[in-house]
Amino acid sequence: MALKAQVLYNFTAEPGNNELSVREGETLTVLSQTVGGGWIEVQDSSGRTGLVPEGYLQVSSAEISFNVLLEPVHVSSVTELLQDSVDDEDGEWDDDWDDQSVGGYHGNNQVDGEGGASGQSTHGPSMKISLNKFPFSKGPSPEVFLLAKPPADSRDRLPVYMGEVGPVWLYPASSLDCVIADPKKESKLYGLKSYIEYQLTPSTTNRPVNHRYKHFDWLYERLLEKFGSALPIPPLPDKQVTGRFEEDFIRMRMEHLQAWMSRMCRHPVVSQSDVFQLFLTYRDEKEWKAGKRKTERDEAVGPMIFTLIEPEAAELDAAQVEQRCEQYSQFTKSMDDGVRELLNVGHAHWKRCTGPLPKEYKRIGRAFRNLSNVFNSSKYPGEETLTDAMTAAGETYEEIAVIVAQQPQKDLHFLLETNSEYKGLLSCFPEIIAVHKAAVEKVKEADRLVSAGKINNNDRKWMNQRISCMSYSLQAEMNHFHSNRIYDYNRVMQLYLEQQVTFYQQIADKLRAALSQFTTL
Amino acid sequence: MALKAQVLYNFTAEPGNNELSVREGETLTVLSQTVGGGWIEVQDSSGRTGLVPEGYLQVSSAEISFNVLLEPVHVSSVTELLQDSVDDEDGEWDDDWDDQSVGGYHGNNQVDGEGGASGQSTHGPSMKISLNKFPFSKGPSPEVFLLAKPPADSRDRLPVYMGEVGPVWLYPASSLDCVIADPKKESKLYGLKSYIEYQLTPSTTNRPVNHRYKHFDWLYERLLEKFGSALPIPPLPDKQVTGRFEEDFIRMRMEHLQAWMSRMCRHPVVSQSDVFQLFLTYRDEKEWKAGKRKTERDEAVGPMIFTLIEPEAAELDAAQVEQRCEQYSQFTKSMDDGVRELLNVGHAHWKRCTGPLPKEYKRIGRAFRNLSNVFNSSKYPGEETLTDAMTAAGETYEEIAVIVAQQPQKDLHFLLETNSEYKGLLSCFPEIIAVHKAAVEKVKEADRLVSAGKINNNDRKWMNQRISCMSYSLQAEMNHFHSNRIYDYNRVMQLYLEQQVTFYQQIADKLRAALSQFTTL
Repeated sequence: MALKAQVLYNFTAEPGNNELSVREGETLTVLSQTVGGGWIEVQDSSGRTGLVPEGYLQVSSAEISFNVLLEPVHVSSVTELLQDSVDDEDGEWDDDWDDQSVGGYHGNNQVDGEGGASGQSTHGPSMKISLNKFPFSKGPSPEVFLLAKPPADSRDRLPVYMGEVGPVWLYPASSLDCVIADPKKESKLYGLKSYIEYQLTPSTTNRPVNHRYKHFDWLYERLLEKFGSALPIPPLPDKQVTGRFEEDFIRMRMEHLQAWMSRMCRHPVVSQSDVFQLFLTYRDEKEWKAGKRKTERDEAVGPMIFTLIEPEAAELDAAQVEQRCEQYSQFTKSMDDGVRELLNVGHAHWKRCTGPLPKEYKRIGRAFRNLSNVFNSSKYPGEETLTDAMTAAGETYEEIAVIVAQQPQKDLHFLLETNSEYKGLLSCFPEIIAVHKAAVEKVKEADRLVSAGKINNNDRKWMNQRISCMSYSLQAEMNHFHSNRIYDYNRVMQLYLEQQVTFYQQIADKLRAALSQFTTL
Repeated sequence: MALKAQVLYNFTAEPGNNELSVREGETLTVLSQTVGGGWIEVQDSSGRTGLVPEGYLQVSSAEISFNVLLEPVHVSSVTELLQDSVDDEDGEWDDDWDDQSVGGYHGNNQVDGEGGASGQSTHGPSMKISLNKFPFSKGPSPEVFLLAKPPADSRDRLPVYMGEVGPVWLYPASSLDCVIADPKKESKLYGLKSYIEYQLTPSTTNRPVNHRYKHFDWLYERLLEKFGSALPIPPLPDKQVTGRFEEDFIRMRMEHLQAWMSRMCRHPVVSQSDVFQLFLTYRDEKEWKAGKRKTERDEAVGPMIFTLIEPEAAELDAAQVEQRCEQYSQFTKSMDDGVRELLNVGHAHWKRCTGPLPKEYKRIGRAFRNLSNVFNSSKYPGEETLTDAMTAAGETYEEIAVIVAQQPQKDLHFLLETNSEYKGLLSCFPEIIAVHKAAVEKVKEADRLVSAGKINNNDRKWMNQRISCMSYSLQAEMNHFHSNRIYDYNRVMQLYLEQQVTFYQQIADKLRAALSQFTTL
């Protein structure tokens, strides 16, 4: 299933860098999305291959449409179909990765969510939704959801409180975190099949549990199924077919899984859900498998999650609900554009800092050292002070070349990772907002539904209350998002600037030392 | 007379920078050598135009061969022929530049001297010399020179003393310098013809004199004629046909003329010569014109300069002379390579620092500011600290962009200027060394000349003494070159590194200030 990509903007290759010049509108074949550094390896229609920055492309795979996101039950069955559903037993896939078709779904899901061209904000996915394709058309119908009563089990309810900033989730008294460490290569079937197992230690129990990437993927699917209509469940790090046992890859994947888990741990709704708790605290294989089965039977998934919302504040009027929805839509679109811009700039800068720039510093250094060597051959007396100083200056620039090349790993890395994470989070909002908008439209139809005898007046009132709940949920989630965002961006900017200060200061100090060796008496 | 250029190395154009990709061995037409920054504007055979770094090209004009340098009398007459020799009167050329053909000679001279491809050191000019073309074949014959007696007028003699470092010139008690300032646009013929006049104030008289570029060119021709066989007379800044009244060009030319004059002032032989003193200290138009006429009649020019050398130390043996010559040849070739390498690297770095790099910093800054604007639209309370800090960080990177773009003018400029000056100086050595080698060969023939009855045994002894004088002259000049070089490179490296330290320190300080605005409570 060859992934295709549309070129969003003209891109001119820098020569000698294995890049490929492409033109807006061109269709490319994706060869690899895992080359790293924000680059995608592609082939154009005339067979030329090379790298293009991911921000210049909109990758879209064959036929699994965006709808799967909104049709969790359906997806779930597709997944099961493809994935060998009975994975409790030894029929379990023995690789670290799942069947490639499923991998395609996963990749597609993530990429499709990124469909909006940065700068143009078409936000493809939300555009594709029509009321006909509204999630309720499969699974529970909109009437069923909008008329549904809260479940009897109050333990499952999701209260929304009024905080200083407006509606907020109920935050747990103590925060949960989890440390992922100690990746081990394990094997099955007498060594025929190998996979990587990570050790997860939650801060609550302090008892480690082991998981493979495919378990994370299972967790992701469950969370997406259950909460995807209300909360952004960011995509997992990409699957990878080749090189997945290489040390660098394992380190990088673990870092990504750690970031993903930490973000999930920070979410008050996700972190307290049964499935998430099961994942982090199961005691033995039996408990894990029983928990899995139970979770997969959970029916409060998809838009049904809104039946659990329990706001403490008064019902909102329809106009206010619509206005909030519009405002969040605007904000998340703009932030998505901003994040993409920063990622594009950052990736370009990364490439310069690891490519041409250190090469140039190295050449400057070598030029100084060479000249120093020439001077040294002059046989003119009293030359040593100069030649020593010039050699030292040359070596300093060669050291600077190394520092420059290593720097992005120290500062840009974290800046880009955080923004990539936010890109993933933001890619979920179009759906959440689309679900909300679709429900708003349904409620607007309430009068007609009453006339048609489909619902009665009480039902209509109840629908108004339900849509108000949805809006509280959206507001609580946006407030959660905002407070996390403010913390995360303060932190990432601090780390970035700290490292940048150290970088420039270090170079200034090195050059000062080199300078001190020269003398004009 | 379209200048042509041979491509020495493959050069790949960076897109969007008005560069032209060229291939080794290609022949190009030179459109402009005065675009600055080490770039030459060219047109290739298929009509495409663009910039190529000067280090990648060997520029060569039509037919005036390198020999002119070694045939000063001949050149002088060519020059006069083309230049309207009677420039005392009103027939003088009224432009700041001379006839283009003469300009071509000048350009050719400089470029030809640079003919050696860096890294390969063929040093074209010295290769082109055969004994048949030895300078003495026109003008005084080698026998005449090698047998010539010192002139009666001891005031003209050039003593060589033994200093701590070996043979040295006689240095004047007080050093001469001259300040060039106050360029004024003057006109003649009721405003029909315009030119720029510079004011030169020598430190000795402190009395300003005025000169136009064409006077500098006259001085250069005289110095080359008189001393070119023994001392490097570096080329003047290039002539320019268009834009020569523009402020930037005038400032740049004045800076180059200043550097050239300062170097000539520092030379003990040049600075004390009649022609140089005339140029700097003439009292009125009459004295200037009389001095010019007298200078142009001077017969102690070309290789005859060696008749003036008066070493205080013992006669050198032939083997030692040859060895010194070889050593200097080696050194100047290697240094020429080293200087070219540094110039190439420096020009490339200049372009990066003024082109893509600040653009990238600007984009980083803008990305931060944009994200800050988006955050500002969140309506989430307590966002101001972050958005203010991110705006400040963005502005800081935009300021850094400006600093980066201005930096080369502050540090690389002087480094490149100094190395360009040395490239000019080094381009003269192949001639000086070739003259020396040719004389050595002639002396080796002395036995045959005695047999042939062309010279007697005393003559042969005298020839040995003369070649020893030449070697002392070369050594004195090399020692002068070395001591200047050590001073100059110490100084230029100091200035470069000082500015680099300031640059990096300034950025570190700015980023530190930006960092202090972020907070994670």
